[in-house]
Amino acid sequence: LEPVPVRADADGIDVEALAATRADAVIVTPAHGLPLGGVLAPGRRSALVHWARERHALVIEDDYDAEFRYDAEPVGTLQGLAPDVVALVGTVSKTLAPALRLGWVLAPPDQVGALAAGRGLQDLGSPLLEQLALARLMSCGGLDRHVRSLRPHYRARRDAVLAALATAVPAARVHGVAAGLHVLVELPAGSDEATLVAVAEQHGVRFYGLARHCAGAPPFPGLVLGYANHTPHELTAAVELIGELLA
Amino acid sequence: LEPVPVRADADGIDVEALAATRADAVIVTPAHGLPLGGVLAPGRRSALVHWARERHALVIEDDYDAEFRYDAEPVGTLQGLAPDVVALVGTVSKTLAPALRLGWVLAPPDQVGALAAGRGLQDLGSPLLEQLALARLMSCGGLDRHVRSLRPHYRARRDAVLAALATAVPAARVHGVAAGLHVLVELPAGSDEATLVAVAEQHGVRFYGLARHCAGAPPFPGLVLGYANHTPHELTAAVELIGELLA
Repeated sequence: LEPVPVRADADGIDVEALAATRADAVIVTPAHGLPLGGVLAPGRRSALVHWARERHALVIEDDYDAEFRYDAEPVGTLQGLAPDVVALVGTVSKTLAPALRLGWVLAPPDQVGALAAGRGLQDLGSPLLEQLALARLMSCGGLDRHVRSLRPHYRARRDAVLAALATAVPAARVHGVAAGLHVLVELPAGSDEATLVAVAEQHGVRFYGLARHCAGAPPFPGLVLGYANHTPHELTAAVELIGELLA
Repeated sequence: LEPVPVRADADGIDVEALAATRADAVIVTPAHGLPLGGVLAPGRRSALVHWARERHALVIEDDYDAEFRYDAEPVGTLQGLAPDVVALVGTVSKTLAPALRLGWVLAPPDQVGALAAGRGLQDLGSPLLEQLALARLMSCGGLDRHVRSLRPHYRARRDAVLAALATAVPAARVHGVAAGLHVLVELPAGSDEATLVAVAEQHGVRFYGLARHCAGAPPFPGLVLGYANHTPHELTAAVELIGELLA
């Protein structure tokens, strides 16, 4: 396996740039990019499927953050468009608990056998009790109810971040706010992202710089703010700290 | 990784044969060989540790079946002899439930970091709830009590197999009876192991031939009889079937 980075922007992966590589498999997060936060644009969806069918390649679709979409209708999966070339992977790490270590793959039918054999060689499979409990929770609608009940909590946290940013860092552009559990704050050109991250950590606030998520040079200085695990009050205080450090 | 088979007998792995290979790691089951059923002999234990230290090699000790020893004192681990070159791996698959998928590695200190990093890359780790429950069960002595309570049940099953073999297949030699959840039945020379396995399966009794476990030619025709999951009555009937098929 040789990983090859491919350019992405607010509309998701650049399929022309992908086609210029020799890759025969690609990992994408069409529902919500990390860190840019975009949704894969409709034209790029069809281009990606076209590329995969032409190249006889595999698209691995990480259905990342699809459960937490606040401002618009849910986004369909690529896998639904092209089940012959897309393997959809999902997890309950963010909807239920990372401690469960349960995920799934919905693979093209001709790859299921090899996938199951490989998983068997790895460690014979995932724990059974949680799988049975999760199947029950899904079939009775409990997982859906749980996710629906989480959404307003996370939306309130996102809104606290956005409100605090508007006041404390009015010059910042904010990306990827429609879904997920993080936003990307684009800082004024020339901001020193690395120093900001380091100083904030000394003040007890940890976030990641955009450069950390980029294979090459980042398009602009930016901060990735995850808000899932903090109260609106904590988030407001953290954003105010960013504003003070930038002032 | 290139696997290299190494000769073993009733005293465990042949360390001279191992030293003749270019292997720099070896997997052994010193407490109970599968399928031959032997315990790694004391002289071979020290020879194996000597080989590992000279070769700067790693011994992976699968502490397989160590919990179920019926006729003698528990066998010490290689890891206890030489923690610098032995990684001890264990599991609750047979003492509690395969469904849990919990195991552990007690690795040489200088390899712990690389091992944890590799495990993290694989899937970020094992489920937490079971780990906490198992830690509680171990620390309160519950796991020990459970294993002690299982031992007489499994011993009764083994004894049923041995008694039935003595009556139904008196010509057979039986290996590896002191521990574990299987015995190896050495059939009279010239017995057709493969046909016996196939015909028994047609009669609803499944066991494995010795050849299935051998990289080269098996030393004799043999049957591996696992008795963990059947009542003494079922086991007796299965052994009687073997006797009829051999007659």
